[in-house]
Amino acid sequence: MNEFELIRRYFTRPARRARLGVGDDCALIDAHGTLAISTDALIEGRHFFSEVDPEALGHKALAVNLSDLAAMGAEPLTCTLALALPVPRAQDSGWMQAFSHGFNTLAERYNCELMGGDTTASPVIMITVTIIGQVPPEQALRRSSAQVGDDIYVSGYLGDAALALAWLQTGKALPAALRQRLERPEPRVALGMGLRGIAHAAIDLSDGLSGDLQHILTASAQSGGPALGASLELEQLPTSPEFEQAASGLTPGQKWHYQLAGGDDYELCFTAPISKRESIAQAAAQAGVEVRRIGRVERDSGLRWLKQGQPVTLKLQSFDHFIDTSLKHTAA
Amino acid sequence: MNEFELIRRYFTRPARRARLGVGDDCALIDAHGTLAISTDALIEGRHFFSEVDPEALGHKALAVNLSDLAAMGAEPLTCTLALALPVPRAQDSGWMQAFSHGFNTLAERYNCELMGGDTTASPVIMITVTIIGQVPPEQALRRSSAQVGDDIYVSGYLGDAALALAWLQTGKALPAALRQRLERPEPRVALGMGLRGIAHAAIDLSDGLSGDLQHILTASAQSGGPALGASLELEQLPTSPEFEQAASGLTPGQKWHYQLAGGDDYELCFTAPISKRESIAQAAAQAGVEVRRIGRVERDSGLRWLKQGQPVTLKLQSFDHFIDTSLKHTAA
Repeated sequence: MNEFELIRRYFTRPARRARLGVGDDCALIDAHGTLAISTDALIEGRHFFSEVDPEALGHKALAVNLSDLAAMGAEPLTCTLALALPVPRAQDSGWMQAFSHGFNTLAERYNCELMGGDTTASPVIMITVTIIGQVPPEQALRRSSAQVGDDIYVSGYLGDAALALAWLQTGKALPAALRQRLERPEPRVALGMGLRGIAHAAIDLSDGLSGDLQHILTASAQSGGPALGASLELEQLPTSPEFEQAASGLTPGQKWHYQLAGGDDYELCFTAPISKRESIAQAAAQAGVEVRRIGRVERDSGLRWLKQGQPVTLKLQSFDHFIDTSLKHTAA
Repeated sequence: MNEFELIRRYFTRPARRARLGVGDDCALIDAHGTLAISTDALIEGRHFFSEVDPEALGHKALAVNLSDLAAMGAEPLTCTLALALPVPRAQDSGWMQAFSHGFNTLAERYNCELMGGDTTASPVIMITVTIIGQVPPEQALRRSSAQVGDDIYVSGYLGDAALALAWLQTGKALPAALRQRLERPEPRVALGMGLRGIAHAAIDLSDGLSGDLQHILTASAQSGGPALGASLELEQLPTSPEFEQAASGLTPGQKWHYQLAGGDDYELCFTAPISKRESIAQAAAQAGVEVRRIGRVERDSGLRWLKQGQPVTLKLQSFDHFIDTSLKHTAA
C-alpha cells in the first residue's frame, strides 16, 4: 500500500462536479463568481484523542471546515485533504476505511467533492483540510459588519462539546448525545446560506462564544476606533437537556464557563438588526436549526453579562492553541 | 504571541487580488473559469532536516505546490497555509520571520496571494499548502494525454537535489549550487503556461523521472488497455556542471540512479508530437528555461534505456513516502 494507492482506494470517488478528479498534478473544477476559502488542521493529542472513533474523526475534519463556509454564508464547492499518518495507521485498513467513510459521507451530503489529496508518514496524525465555497460577495457574512443595536444570536446549544471533553478526560462514562456533539459536530451550512442578506455579521464557534463574539466586536469597530461591545443574557444561553443533566452537580459559574469559553461547539454566532427578527425565525425554521437571541451589540467595548437584568461578573479565558492547554491538551 | 497574532504578524499582507484577505472565517476572491487545485505537505524529519534554513523552507513549501500548477499549465491564483509547529519554533521570531519571508516572497513573485491560514502546536513541523490556479480546461496539461510517437522532454537538470541530499546525509561540504537546487527549487510556472496547447501531457518531477514518467504512461493507456511505454536516451539526461563535478567519483549507474530515481527535482517532464519541436523551443526560450528531448513514447509498456543506441539494464526504485525511506528519512 503506497501513497498513491491510499488516495485511490479510500478517497477517489467518481467525479461529479469536477472536470478532473484526484490523480493528476491538479484537479480541475469550474467556478464562476466569488470563492470563499478556508483551511483548518486537526492534530492528534491536540484536537482529538488517539483512540477516537476514526469514522467520527473523518467526519469532524471536514465538518470544522464546512463550518467556516457556513459562517460566511457560502455554499460548499470542493475540498482538499492532506493526511499525515504514522505508518501503522496507514496500514490499518479498518481504521482507514472508517476514517474515509466519515469524511466521504459528509462530503457527499454537502456536495463538496474531494479534489486534492496528499498522504505522508509522520509521527502523529495530522489532518489538514482546505475548503472552497461560493458566495455572492455582497451577501457574504463578514465578521466586520456588526452594528450597534444589532441583536446577537447563536444556533443550537452551547457547552455540550466542552463538557463532553472534560468528562472524557476524567474517565467518566459519557452520555451518547454529548459525545456526538464533541465528535460529530453538524456544520450549519443551510442556516448560513439562509442568513445571506439578513444577518450583518457571523462567526462559527470554535474557541468559545466569549472569544469568538469578541472577534466580531473587534473587527466591526469603526476604522481606528475602539471595539464594539455587547450585553449578553446568561439565562438565554441555549442549553441542551443532556448538558443540564450532566452538569447538574456544577455551580452556575462552572456551567457558564463550559458554555462561554469551552469551544468546539461549531454553532453559528451572528448579529442582525431588530427589524430582521421575523426573517431570521423563517431562515432558522427552513434550515431546521434552532436559533436563540442572547444579547445586543453596544457601542461601549467589552462583554457585559446579565442575569435577570442585573450585571454579573465572570472570569473567562478563551482557548488558544499556543497559550491555554488546560482544556484540549491530552495525554496522547 | 497567540495563533491569531502569528498569522497577522507574519503572513497578513495588504489584499491585492482578494476581496477579503486572511482574518475572517473565509477569505474571498473572484474566479471565473476552471480552477486547478492541489495540496502538498512537508514534514520535519521526512521532507526536510530540522536545521534547514527557514527562509529556504518557506520558499520550498510553496514552490512544490506551484510546481503542481506548472505541470497543469495553470496560472497561480491563491494559496492557503496550515502551519503546525512545536511551541519554541512559534516563539522564535527570527525563525518565523525567515520562514514567512521565504514564503511571502515567492507568493508575491507569482502573484499567488495567501488567503487562508491556520497555526497550531504540534510535536514536529508540518507545513501544508493548498494551491489554486486557473487554466483554460481544453489546454490543461493532463497526465493522461500522451500519445504513441510523442517526444519526451524534461526541463532544467536532473539529479542535483538527490545528490545534494545524499551529501548532506553523509556530512560532506556541499557546493552552494547543489544545496540551492535541493532547498530552493524554482517552479516552472512560465514554462507550463507556455506549453498550453503545445504539449500533450505533463507532470512535475517530485519522486524521480522514472516513476513520474511512468504515471504519464499508465494514465495515457487506452481505456482498459496496458500502459504505454518509452525509450529514453541516457546520454540526453540533462546534467548540471555542479552535478558532474560532485559526482565525478561515482559509477555511471550511481549517477543515473540520482538522475532517474532521486526525486525532488521539481522540473517538468512532458510529451509533445514531433511537429511541435519548434514551438517547444520557442516556449522554453520565452520562459527562460532549458528543455531537453530525452526519448520517445512507444506502444509497448515499460521503460527502455538506451546508451549510444544500445539497450542498457537499470534497476531503479522511485521514492514512496510509505515504502522506501532510504533517500529521505533523516535523523530528526
